[in-house]
Amino acid sequence: MLREAKQLVKRALGGIVRNVRAPGDVLTPAHWGMTVTSQGHLAFEGVDLASLREAWGSPLHVVLAERLRQNVSEFLAVNEHGRTRGEVYYSYKSNPVPGVLRFVHDLGIGAEVISEYELWLALKLGMPPDRIVFNGPAKSDAAVRDAVARDILLLNVNHREEIAVVASVARELGKRPRIGVRAATSSGWMGQFGHSISTGDAFAALKEVHESGVLELTAIHTHVGGMVRTKHQVQGYVGEILALADRVRNELGVELAILDFGGSLATPSVTGISNLDRKLATAFQAALPEPVPEATLSIREYVRCVVEQVEAHYATKARPCPRIFFEPGRALTGNTQLLITSVLSLKVGEPKPGWAILDAGINLAESVRSEFHQLFPVTRMHEPRSHRYRLAGPICSPGDVLSWSACLPALAAGDALAIMDAGAYFVPFATSFSFPQPAIVMLDRADVRLLRRAERFEDMVAFDEMG
Amino acid sequence: MLREAKQLVKRALGGIVRNVRAPGDVLTPAHWGMTVTSQGHLAFEGVDLASLREAWGSPLHVVLAERLRQNVSEFLAVNEHGRTRGEVYYSYKSNPVPGVLRFVHDLGIGAEVISEYELWLALKLGMPPDRIVFNGPAKSDAAVRDAVARDILLLNVNHREEIAVVASVARELGKRPRIGVRAATSSGWMGQFGHSISTGDAFAALKEVHESGVLELTAIHTHVGGMVRTKHQVQGYVGEILALADRVRNELGVELAILDFGGSLATPSVTGISNLDRKLATAFQAALPEPVPEATLSIREYVRCVVEQVEAHYATKARPCPRIFFEPGRALTGNTQLLITSVLSLKVGEPKPGWAILDAGINLAESVRSEFHQLFPVTRMHEPRSHRYRLAGPICSPGDVLSWSACLPALAAGDALAIMDAGAYFVPFATSFSFPQPAIVMLDRADVRLLRRAERFEDMVAFDEMG
Repeated sequence: MLREAKQLVKRALGGIVRNVRAPGDVLTPAHWGMTVTSQGHLAFEGVDLASLREAWGSPLHVVLAERLRQNVSEFLAVNEHGRTRGEVYYSYKSNPVPGVLRFVHDLGIGAEVISEYELWLALKLGMPPDRIVFNGPAKSDAAVRDAVARDILLLNVNHREEIAVVASVARELGKRPRIGVRAATSSGWMGQFGHSISTGDAFAALKEVHESGVLELTAIHTHVGGMVRTKHQVQGYVGEILALADRVRNELGVELAILDFGGSLATPSVTGISNLDRKLATAFQAALPEPVPEATLSIREYVRCVVEQVEAHYATKARPCPRIFFEPGRALTGNTQLLITSVLSLKVGEPKPGWAILDAGINLAESVRSEFHQLFPVTRMHEPRSHRYRLAGPICSPGDVLSWSACLPALAAGDALAIMDAGAYFVPFATSFSFPQPAIVMLDRADVRLLRRAERFEDMVAFDEMG
Repeated sequence: MLREAKQLVKRALGGIVRNVRAPGDVLTPAHWGMTVTSQGHLAFEGVDLASLREAWGSPLHVVLAERLRQNVSEFLAVNEHGRTRGEVYYSYKSNPVPGVLRFVHDLGIGAEVISEYELWLALKLGMPPDRIVFNGPAKSDAAVRDAVARDILLLNVNHREEIAVVASVARELGKRPRIGVRAATSSGWMGQFGHSISTGDAFAALKEVHESGVLELTAIHTHVGGMVRTKHQVQGYVGEILALADRVRNELGVELAILDFGGSLATPSVTGISNLDRKLATAFQAALPEPVPEATLSIREYVRCVVEQVEAHYATKARPCPRIFFEPGRALTGNTQLLITSVLSLKVGEPKPGWAILDAGINLAESVRSEFHQLFPVTRMHEPRSHRYRLAGPICSPGDVLSWSACLPALAAGDALAIMDAGAYFVPFATSFSFPQPAIVMLDRADVRLLRRAERFEDMVAFDEMG
């Protein structure tokens, strides 16, 4: 009885919530530079995305080269003197696909790495050591040795205990590596990352580097974390870094050569899912609110905001302006890639709404559990979004749900969906859980090129003793 | 001011909470059949686990063969007539390492698969088709075709829409496949999985299979989900399945040949982390409560409980008892494997407690975010657990935290830790996020054998166009 009453109330409330929370139409294909063909198919540069699935299989990652080129050019926009406003080192961990990395390197982007593997990869891709920045809390001894031996551009120590390790390697190899210190601003991540500016710990670490005798104190590094969207946020943490740089100048007599502002600029079409929105979606199948792209600084605005604040600060003090580093991950590649997935089957009986079972789930799109990502029905763009579906992935786990409330046209088995903004943290968080990992292709000026072939069954046991 | 006051209160409360929530000593190495050497090293069958890391590198998965043999023998324990009490099909997705699968197959365990890949793997490992059960919501057409063509033991349809697909393939191939239907009990998972018994949907699906004309209605399949611990839980869902089987007999005239009870028996030393415990751990570094192994049915008790209830039911009705299937995942392999990880660095300044940065994090031990897993300091077992650490993994993400409150001896860089119960859902959820995946060895009667070699840097780009 109680259960039935609850169901009744839920059903009544659900209708209200769903009406209030109807899906918006803010994020159309045009936001990604895509079009819709006369047949109602999603297309980019005239290439029908459904044809890509036919040719390359499903699931399939598609890198939109022109979008990536555009993001790079925004990051590297020049000022009125024809100079770029900062230097950009791409966060390898965000999307470590060699074809993507080579593409951005060829356009003038350097490498930001956090492991011995990523350092190896950057060198393998032809990055000169002086275009590589090494960060992160987990630098193995082998990685430190390699980085110091090769004279990489900058090694940012994460915490004080790393200083002695790097100094010891430097002494042994007779090197004087350029060192930065990761500093946590008041609004930024802390935890395992860096030292607090406000407690004085960050300054103490900078001092320790300076006094080591073998390390070249070169930079302050910060990475505010989360998703930065506004000028106000940026000005806050940039101001704290500038104040710390002043203290270094005043107390240690060192004019830092580099200020490294890390990443964290949001992808305009992606936003975190709040607890309330998650509850409304799971309980009532309410649509998630779509983010408003204009609420996020564009890349160009963000770069200008940081650079102008730094330049103004040093101009006022009549001191030479340091080099300004950016280490974008999601901001550079997030919205330049999409994941095509297929409906394997529908399960549309009670309870409503029904389920669509997809061939990609959290095994390939882990981020969709905690972030809003727009979803398009690749071949049904002309049909009304008349149905609500819950979208499950294939891995046979109750956590493998990509949406509790997707508003879509009536689907059929075999239909394709495009999950947008798959260009950051999809590939690195991918697993081979019961299903092989998909191919990655690049769509560039109507040409399609394979960047990474799909995993095959044999590959999944290639390192195993099969005897 | 307010912030400082909050800090003060938190510090005061923290002391109280930590005293109340001191770490227990319930789960000692003996629980896993391990010993401690005179030097204070963790050992299994006389083999020092620290020596394994020296020989095979870090991180390292270690499969404890004797533990696995013991779990298998409990599942296959014979009754007073010398017959085993049920048939066991191992859930491939839980730990799809060929060396582990072959080991349990050689001891009499069959294969439970959920994808075309896993079906391929079972056949490759020499499983005859009549030792393979195929489940899951995401059966591709190719997988269904393969399964039907090979006459596998049992194909359990997840939802009604699958019935027509399987029937069509059966017709085309001239086969009559044995079919079960996944039924959701009142306490079990529902969502994308199966049809509810209470609404009548499960029966309707069974009827549809029976009336298809080309499918052999053979089984009810259930998988309650979560972590089953008590006789009371088991009796509840077994009773619902028996009632459904009676209805099938009464209304369809079919005596089902198989009742398939799926998996879900808990690993006794693993438990989910409650929201409260998580908050106490993150806010106050309170130790997580250790599970009490005795609170979970042993494998033998669980099997006996199911089998006796089924046998009694059919004996009372003077009907032939169906075959009883179990599909354990975590219950069979969970506590038979451990993950050795090394401390890369410490970050011990304020705020207390300090951080230990490990070479394994959520990239290899995703489950530890939501489950209690015991942790041992491999070479410091004789030292008092005098320190609290937060344990971070290497992947440079704030979510990469394995513990907020690990009570351990004072650690140094290079120390090894053993994360227990790594035998289910660690390997399948592993990623190659910035770091290669580790080797897996089997320790068997003091002998060590490589099951899977470690991933190498070259492997991580082996499918990429590097040109």
